[in-house]
Amino acid sequence: MSILLVQTACNTIVEESKQDANGKKKSSIVKEDSIVIQQLYTEALQNPQGYYYLDTLCNQIGARLSGSEGAQKAVVYCEKVMKNLGFDKVYLQPVKVPKWVRGNAEKAFIIAKSEKIPLKVCALGNSIGTGEKGAQAEIIEVKDFETLKQLGEEKIKGKIVFFNRSMNPAYIETFTAYGQASNQRVQGASEAAKYGAIAVIVRSMTTNLDDIPHTGTLRYQLNVPQIPAVAISTNDAEKLSKAIKNDPNTLIYLETHCQNLGEVDSYNVIGEITGTEKPEEIIVVGGHLDSWDLAQGAHDDGTGCMQSIEVLRLFKKNNIKPKRTIRAVMFMNEENGLNGGRTYAQEAKNKKEKHIVAIESDSGGFIPLGFSVDNDQGKLELMQQWIPLLEPFQLFFIKKGYGGADISPLRDQGTILIALRPDSQRYFDYHHTAIDTFDKVNPREMQMGAAAMATLIFLLDKYL
Amino acid sequence: MSILLVQTACNTIVEESKQDANGKKKSSIVKEDSIVIQQLYTEALQNPQGYYYLDTLCNQIGARLSGSEGAQKAVVYCEKVMKNLGFDKVYLQPVKVPKWVRGNAEKAFIIAKSEKIPLKVCALGNSIGTGEKGAQAEIIEVKDFETLKQLGEEKIKGKIVFFNRSMNPAYIETFTAYGQASNQRVQGASEAAKYGAIAVIVRSMTTNLDDIPHTGTLRYQLNVPQIPAVAISTNDAEKLSKAIKNDPNTLIYLETHCQNLGEVDSYNVIGEITGTEKPEEIIVVGGHLDSWDLAQGAHDDGTGCMQSIEVLRLFKKNNIKPKRTIRAVMFMNEENGLNGGRTYAQEAKNKKEKHIVAIESDSGGFIPLGFSVDNDQGKLELMQQWIPLLEPFQLFFIKKGYGGADISPLRDQGTILIALRPDSQRYFDYHHTAIDTFDKVNPREMQMGAAAMATLIFLLDKYL
Repeated sequence: MSILLVQTACNTIVEESKQDANGKKKSSIVKEDSIVIQQLYTEALQNPQGYYYLDTLCNQIGARLSGSEGAQKAVVYCEKVMKNLGFDKVYLQPVKVPKWVRGNAEKAFIIAKSEKIPLKVCALGNSIGTGEKGAQAEIIEVKDFETLKQLGEEKIKGKIVFFNRSMNPAYIETFTAYGQASNQRVQGASEAAKYGAIAVIVRSMTTNLDDIPHTGTLRYQLNVPQIPAVAISTNDAEKLSKAIKNDPNTLIYLETHCQNLGEVDSYNVIGEITGTEKPEEIIVVGGHLDSWDLAQGAHDDGTGCMQSIEVLRLFKKNNIKPKRTIRAVMFMNEENGLNGGRTYAQEAKNKKEKHIVAIESDSGGFIPLGFSVDNDQGKLELMQQWIPLLEPFQLFFIKKGYGGADISPLRDQGTILIALRPDSQRYFDYHHTAIDTFDKVNPREMQMGAAAMATLIFLLDKYL
Repeated sequence: MSILLVQTACNTIVEESKQDANGKKKSSIVKEDSIVIQQLYTEALQNPQGYYYLDTLCNQIGARLSGSEGAQKAVVYCEKVMKNLGFDKVYLQPVKVPKWVRGNAEKAFIIAKSEKIPLKVCALGNSIGTGEKGAQAEIIEVKDFETLKQLGEEKIKGKIVFFNRSMNPAYIETFTAYGQASNQRVQGASEAAKYGAIAVIVRSMTTNLDDIPHTGTLRYQLNVPQIPAVAISTNDAEKLSKAIKNDPNTLIYLETHCQNLGEVDSYNVIGEITGTEKPEEIIVVGGHLDSWDLAQGAHDDGTGCMQSIEVLRLFKKNNIKPKRTIRAVMFMNEENGLNGGRTYAQEAKNKKEKHIVAIESDSGGFIPLGFSVDNDQGKLELMQQWIPLLEPFQLFFIKKGYGGADISPLRDQGTILIALRPDSQRYFDYHHTAIDTFDKVNPREMQMGAAAMATLIFLLDKYL
C-alpha cells in the first residue's frame, strides 16, 4: 500500500450514546472513562517500558525453569524493577518448587540397516532420563489412548510408543486444537507404561511442519512405572511415521539425561499499589515468571509478567489512584507444577485477603482481541456494557471462558477469573521451544496487551 | 501456558438465533451458510496453497517493481498458477507503466570536521538522482509544510530540507498515523523545491526506531523544479537531528543514481470463475502485483495477490458455483502510479462490464479483523447482518471506511469498494523495506485473510 489514506482515527475518544463498529446504537458510554483509557494506551505506546523490561528479562537473564539460576535471577530482577518504579509494596513470597534438569543433550536415532538416522527430539519436562545406557526398542505408532487399549500389552510391551496425533489446524483458536492434542504429552508416558512400553516419543504441539521439538510438562500417574518421554519435531514425526510404514519393525535408540532433583526454594514476586478506599480488596494481574529451559520464554510468559508490571506503571504514570489494591504477581512454577499459583491462593486464604478479581496474561504477547471470564459471580453482563469503551482500542469481546492457570486456585475464594485473549495464530510457532525469543515479540502488540488489562482493571475498580 | 485447556471451539457452527460473542441475541443466522464458511476456512487452514504460492513469488521471483524483470516474471507466474488451477478464464490485460530504476547504491554522509558520518538512506520512488556529482549543502530540519512556508526562500534556498515528523504511535490503527505523516514523503520534494531547496531527506514511515530506510513513492508537482529525495532510517533521523542541534550549519552529502526511464509495457493478471446465473455481473477480489525494488514485497502486496487467487481456489475446491462472475485481479503499478487500477476501470467501462463489488487486500497478510466499506450503495446494513456468521472466525466488524487504491477507480461505476482489514500493528515494521520478506508472513494469518474474503464474497454473491 503506497497511497495516502485518509481514515478516521480508530481510537478517537468516544462520546456518550455512540454507535459501535457495526453501526448499532450503544448507550451510556462515559466520556471521562474514554479519556482515561486513551491516556493508558498513549503512555503504553509512546513509552513502551514493559517491552524494554522484557528485553532485559529475555536477553540478559534468559531461560527461567523453576529452581534454576535463571529463575532466581528473574526473581531478583522483577523485585528490583518494581522497587525502582516506586510501587507501594514489593515483596517475595516463598514457594517450594520441583527442580528438574535436562542434563546433556538428547540423542535419538532410527536404527536403519546401514545407518543411524538422527531425529530432533527433546525430553519432556518432569521426565526421567534413560541415562547413558539409552533405550533401544521397536517403535509402534498410535494416535490416541483408545488405540493403546486395543493393541494391549501383547503389542506394546517392551516397545517405544510414538504418539503422532496432529493439532487440528482448522480451529481458529489454536488453544482448542492444543487442548485436543496435548493429553498425549501430559499423560502419554503413564498410559503407555500401563501396557509395558519402555519409553514414549510425542509429536510436537504445533500445526506447523518444522524442525523444532516443543517440550512441555508430563505428569506421571501414581503406581504406574515411570518411563522416559521426549517430544519430536513435526517434520521428524512425519519422517518417523513413514519409516514405520516402510518397516513395521523399525528400531529406535533414545538417550536422555534429565533428572528430577526434588524440591527447592523459590518465590512469587509481588508488587502493589495500595487502594485508597478499600485497600483490603485486591485485584490481581499476573503471569508466570518461570519458563522452560530451552529458550528465553518471551511469549511464554515473559510478556505476561512484564505486562503485569506495566499495568501498575501505567496507573502510577497517569496518576490513577485505585480504590482497591492492585497487585502485580509474577507466579513461579506454572510450567511444571503450578506451585506458585497454589501457594499464592493458600496464603491469601490464610491471611483472609479478599480477592475480587484476578486477570492473567499467559497466551503470548500478541495483539489482544478481548477477555474471557471464568467464575464471573454474575458480573459478566455488567462488564459487557463496557464493550463500546473498548472497541476503539480493538478489544471486541468479554465472554465466558477460560481464566488462567496460575489464578485458578483462587476460584473457591469467589474471585472472578479473567484471561487476556490475544490472537492465537502464532503462539504455537514458538511455544516451549528454543525460538521463543525476544525478537518474536512486537512492542505494539505487547504494550496493547498491558494497556488492555490496565483498562479493564480501571473499569473493574471503578464500577464493580 | 502449559496446562490442558478445555475451551469451547471458537469456530463451531453457529445455529439460528444465537448469541453473539458478547451475549446479545442475534437473529436469522443461516446454519447452512455457516457450514459453507467453515468449509472455506478448513480448506484454507489445512491446505495453505496460497502461502505456498507466496513462497515461490517471494523466494523465486522476489522484487517486482513496475517495468522490472521481476514484475514480468510475476505476471507469467500468476497466469500459470491460475491456468493450472483450471479457472474458467485466465488472461493478461495490457497496462502502460512507468519504469523507475534505483541504479547504484545511495550514499549519504554528515560532513563533520574531521570525518564523514554515514547515514542509512534510500532514494524515494520516482525521484530523480543526484548523479555522480552528488549534492552537498547545509541541512535544515522541519516537521511540516507550514514551517517551510514560515522559513521561506531566504532560509531554505540552496539547502537540503530534512522532514523529520514522526508517525504518532498512539493510534491503534497505524495507517492513521501513516496518513498523518506521509505527505512529507509524497509531496515534500516539490514543497521544498518551491523555496529553492536542492534535495530532501525524509524520516522513514515507521513508529519503530531502527536502521532500515523505508522507500515509497513521491509525486513531483507540475511546474516545480524536480529535486532528489531520499528516506532515512529512524535511528539515523534521530542522529541527524542531534547533529543539527549541535551545529545548525551541518553539511550533508547525498548521492543517488535513480532514473525515470519513461513508460513500458506491462500487465494486470486476471483469472475468473464465470457466474452460473448472472455471469455479466462481476465481483472482483484483488491486490497489487508490483512491489518496491528493495525486497520481496511479501506483505506489500504479495499476500493480497496470492490471497486473491486462493479465494477462487477455495470456491472451486468446495464446489461453490457462484451466481455472479468472481474475478481475481493482480493489479500492476499500485506503488508508483496506479496505472493498473486505472486501466482496469477504464477497460471495464469500455466493455460495459457491471462491477457490483470489488474487495482489495493491501494492508498486509496479518490476522484479519473485519472489513471496511466505501461507496456502499446502501448495502452496509445488510452486510452488517452477517456479523454473527463472521464472529466465530474472529471477524468482528463491517464498517464504513477505506476501500482500496487499485479498486478506487471503479467508484464512479457504482461499485461497492471493500478493504480486508487485518490488524495493523506490524505493517510498518516492514513496509517498503528490504525486510518485507516471506519469513515475516504467518501462514495461518495469511490464509485466514483469504478465507475471510472468500466468505464475504460467498455472502455477497448469495444475498446482494
